[in-house]
Amino acid sequence: MTDRHPVTVVGLGAMGREIARVLLEAGHPATVWNRTPSRADDLVAEGATRADTVAQAVTSSPLVMVCVLDYAATRELLEPVAAELAGRTVVQLTTGTPRQARELAAWAAECGIDYVDSGMMATPPMIGSETSQFLYSGDEAAFQRYRPALELLGTSRWFGADAGLASLYDLALLSGMYTMFAGFLHGAAMVGTAGVSAAEFAASAGEWLRAMTASLPYAAAFVDSGDYTTDVQSVEFNKAALDVIVQASVDQGVAPDLVAPIQELLARQLAEGHGEESFDRIIESIRSRPA
Amino acid sequence: MTDRHPVTVVGLGAMGREIARVLLEAGHPATVWNRTPSRADDLVAEGATRADTVAQAVTSSPLVMVCVLDYAATRELLEPVAAELAGRTVVQLTTGTPRQARELAAWAAECGIDYVDSGMMATPPMIGSETSQFLYSGDEAAFQRYRPALELLGTSRWFGADAGLASLYDLALLSGMYTMFAGFLHGAAMVGTAGVSAAEFAASAGEWLRAMTASLPYAAAFVDSGDYTTDVQSVEFNKAALDVIVQASVDQGVAPDLVAPIQELLARQLAEGHGEESFDRIIESIRSRPA
Repeated sequence: MTDRHPVTVVGLGAMGREIARVLLEAGHPATVWNRTPSRADDLVAEGATRADTVAQAVTSSPLVMVCVLDYAATRELLEPVAAELAGRTVVQLTTGTPRQARELAAWAAECGIDYVDSGMMATPPMIGSETSQFLYSGDEAAFQRYRPALELLGTSRWFGADAGLASLYDLALLSGMYTMFAGFLHGAAMVGTAGVSAAEFAASAGEWLRAMTASLPYAAAFVDSGDYTTDVQSVEFNKAALDVIVQASVDQGVAPDLVAPIQELLARQLAEGHGEESFDRIIESIRSRPA
Repeated sequence: MTDRHPVTVVGLGAMGREIARVLLEAGHPATVWNRTPSRADDLVAEGATRADTVAQAVTSSPLVMVCVLDYAATRELLEPVAAELAGRTVVQLTTGTPRQARELAAWAAECGIDYVDSGMMATPPMIGSETSQFLYSGDEAAFQRYRPALELLGTSRWFGADAGLASLYDLALLSGMYTMFAGFLHGAAMVGTAGVSAAEFAASAGEWLRAMTASLPYAAAFVDSGDYTTDVQSVEFNKAALDVIVQASVDQGVAPDLVAPIQELLARQLAEGHGEESFDRIIESIRSRPA
């Protein structure tokens, strides 16, 4: 049990609870804190220690994992216990922007706190399995020190000293997930107008989307080279397809909010004279345009 | 060779050419027509017959497959040869709306033409492999008669007598594909601001998105039941995540066009008092709202 160091988990939402449970089951003494203390009841029954205050929580372990609503909540909890945190490691699991991660890392450095930022690529039931991915960046020595515990939660990936990079990568992957789910729901709404169940559609869509991920490297090659020359799947061809999808959605009484932006980006590429180039050129319309 | 009946392919874009090639290689005598005749040169070298006119093309085979830009182009080509088409089968592979498919089916019925509408779930290189899916609806007897030839192109699925249903299902699946690719490009633009290549991101994103498709049946269960009660992945939780994604995108100089609509639909659900229900409830905001 020498390597089963104590761990503190601050924030017992669905994610924080699963994280505490996995660490506890692996033999790590776990101290937990939540604003609503009763959220810890079942974890306490499984052997966790309930801290009455944040100060008590963070002084119980060399590794403090934070999983609360946002960075504002994180700072509200941690700033009053900065002195107690000095010399310890904070692993921030809360979702935030790269800028927020960099700002919190700077604050931690001033306070003598080792700071590791994390992006979680998982739903709560995936915690503790290899299919969940945890992305980390920030203080590499601290990350390596606690890596065995962190690996219990899922596959861990290291991105470097820029504390914002794990978050950036996390949010980029989440963007792909959200748009995929949104597109699935749009499709389910369409076939639903003909009485097809979402369950039936999910089986087809899952198979189709898994097959289509095989084309992502080809899309990436266009983007990385900046050469969008193609003789298939042109902007013009795909603009016509999006026109049909949007028209069909409207015909069926489904609002086209989730597909119309793709149509609009293709229209912009077409207007700029890139009709014969690859669909993937729409990335040029989002990354070169100020907010 | 008794079952290797002649086939005519009208329209030799990337898809039409692959379709003609696969049928030809399987031993079907193939007649091909394209507005620009030189597009047939390599197929002719492989054994296809070039038709000089559409009338000549459609009278060369009992099965006429049409793969042109849109339904307007289809009607422009087929209406003048309605008499020649009577008693033959037209398989319409051109992408269109369910309404256009139903209208063309009605016209075909008036002319005594057997009509099958198809949605193609494939990129040109996938034609002829099991990974490509062809969805069909319309005249079932005609579909069954030519099914062996159609199966050469990819896995075929039958949806019923409503000629619009194959198209509806096709467009629903394409919606999922387009939004997934768009989300990938958004993510690639985000990580690109930190110097990460799209190729590296594609490897991660492909693995992540394939894993996430396992959650589609859970999303479907919410939609089918109309009961969005959940204790994880609520509207409120996901709205906060989308707020972070949009803010991080703007911070990094990436226009949030492709993710902002999801944020807006979540905001609408939140405003309507559904913050504690499942993310998937955004479907209620698109299917219940007139255009």
